[in-house]
Amino acid sequence: MPQLRRDPVTGRWVIISTDRQKRPNDFRFERAQILGREQCPFCPGHEALTPPEVLSYRQNGGVPNGPGWDLRVVPNKFPALQVEGMLDREGEGMFDRMNGIGAHEVIIETPDHDRTLAKMSEAEIERVLWAYRERILDLKRDFRLKYILVFKNHGPAAGATLEHTHSQLIALPIVPDFVREELDGARQHFAAKERCVFCDIARQELSDGRRVVQENADIVALSPYAPRFAFETWLLPKRHGARFEDAPRNEYEALARLLKAVLQRIDRALESPSYNLILHTSPFAIDTSEIYHWHVEIMPKLTRVAGFEWGTGFYINPTSPEEAARVLRGVRL
Amino acid sequence: MPQLRRDPVTGRWVIISTDRQKRPNDFRFERAQILGREQCPFCPGHEALTPPEVLSYRQNGGVPNGPGWDLRVVPNKFPALQVEGMLDREGEGMFDRMNGIGAHEVIIETPDHDRTLAKMSEAEIERVLWAYRERILDLKRDFRLKYILVFKNHGPAAGATLEHTHSQLIALPIVPDFVREELDGARQHFAAKERCVFCDIARQELSDGRRVVQENADIVALSPYAPRFAFETWLLPKRHGARFEDAPRNEYEALARLLKAVLQRIDRALESPSYNLILHTSPFAIDTSEIYHWHVEIMPKLTRVAGFEWGTGFYINPTSPEEAARVLRGVRL
Repeated sequence: MPQLRRDPVTGRWVIISTDRQKRPNDFRFERAQILGREQCPFCPGHEALTPPEVLSYRQNGGVPNGPGWDLRVVPNKFPALQVEGMLDREGEGMFDRMNGIGAHEVIIETPDHDRTLAKMSEAEIERVLWAYRERILDLKRDFRLKYILVFKNHGPAAGATLEHTHSQLIALPIVPDFVREELDGARQHFAAKERCVFCDIARQELSDGRRVVQENADIVALSPYAPRFAFETWLLPKRHGARFEDAPRNEYEALARLLKAVLQRIDRALESPSYNLILHTSPFAIDTSEIYHWHVEIMPKLTRVAGFEWGTGFYINPTSPEEAARVLRGVRL
Repeated sequence: MPQLRRDPVTGRWVIISTDRQKRPNDFRFERAQILGREQCPFCPGHEALTPPEVLSYRQNGGVPNGPGWDLRVVPNKFPALQVEGMLDREGEGMFDRMNGIGAHEVIIETPDHDRTLAKMSEAEIERVLWAYRERILDLKRDFRLKYILVFKNHGPAAGATLEHTHSQLIALPIVPDFVREELDGARQHFAAKERCVFCDIARQELSDGRRVVQENADIVALSPYAPRFAFETWLLPKRHGARFEDAPRNEYEALARLLKAVLQRIDRALESPSYNLILHTSPFAIDTSEIYHWHVEIMPKLTRVAGFEWGTGFYINPTSPEEAARVLRGVRL
């Protein structure tokens, strides 16, 4: 059973997921071989290679766990967390832990082994966003869970171990540190000014313009003022809203369009780099409606893992966001 | 001029160091070629390839910036921060920035191109620790600076771009996020219990034993209860003390001995992996003497940069600290 453990100094929760370690005494490398399309568990006809699907979109019919799907959501075969069981919160002297209860799912974005999110149509990307929403709405009914982390690792340097394009979702019984920090900061800003900090950012960036990559009626893509990574890009809804799953229909459509454009710009400017994409949205049980603002963060993986960033959370970025936005704006789509 | 910029949501400072980007419009890769020993700027006889030294230890004499040294500290040739200038703290609408004032130095730990820290003698390792101390004491006299980050990237996967063994030091006009988080947590623990949280950890771990790797009279090496990374190892002084630079002589000697043993254990158990080593010590200007406890954290780089850890600070660790400590304890030295 995986465990969630809390660092007694910083309060940071980590998952100790020893079940994923298949080969005892072989700590050197993680499971990382890329399977070709013949063995790809995400290709049509190979549905039996994944656990049974929890959701599929099938415009042209077909039975569950058979071919014919356009998008498919399945439990991760090597889950970091486990659905069954109770949390069993427990102290161990001064330490705190609980069972690693939660869900770990894979969103297979397309049946086509050779597409990438950037190459999918806007309608197909929008379908992926609706699948995120549908899984969040389903999983948040589980009273044990507090947060759902939706993310995408694209390319080997970003940690993807299967090349067939997919996203992942981890539903957690705790709120991760990075969300807690954002919430604390947003709460302080609201306490001082009675305004959402992300709304203020969007307003200032749109009027300034130097860090704007592209915008449409509902979403703005920008290089944040203090980016941790070169070409880090945020997609921020212009309308205030704390929860991705409660966004109006037009924002999914607008996000899909802008996401495609931004990923194409990144692909062309930076030779199709690996990247991580993370959905930042509100935890479930607390009322964040005034202070928080859902958004998407994209982090291209351009530099090798920079030494001391690893383990300190202190970042040196060799590219200014003004330069990054200028380069991305200059790409001809 | 590099800049320090503050994220308006989380309060995290980042360094935007565009001067390090030597080739405009080539964002794809960072400078990363490994120089052989013929061109190694850290080898004796090549002193002219580095900026003039700020410190050297020369048991056998020799003139500054010439051969004969045992250890040498030089400014980084590609510094992330710049020594000259004023901070010029400035607001830009809602954003905050200041000039990237600070120091970025390299501690060349030995003249021998082929040694590693693990292979150096205990006396040689102790000399490295004394050099850290001496540079900290010198730099903290600069009223502009608030924190000194001492770290070591060993091996290419940890971000080292030169194979000749060395540490780095970055003196900062701000307190990095990870230190702020530790201080906040330690302050809360002290407020509740009137005890140092690190002292409590050392006491509980020593009495429990399962996560202890090795100890001597002054220092204990342990796998922390909630490690972010597989085989993450902390070296914690048993005596309370907030500042590395104020530690008594016997603690440097004890730390050198234990550091050598732990690095040898890691090398043998894990096939000499890349690793990052980070000294955690108190900021200068604030009184942390009761609450903080200096220590060293070592993070072997065993897995590829795990996808969503990057950019979220949320970690999944495939190896429990009990297992890691058991494996490291089992190495025969």
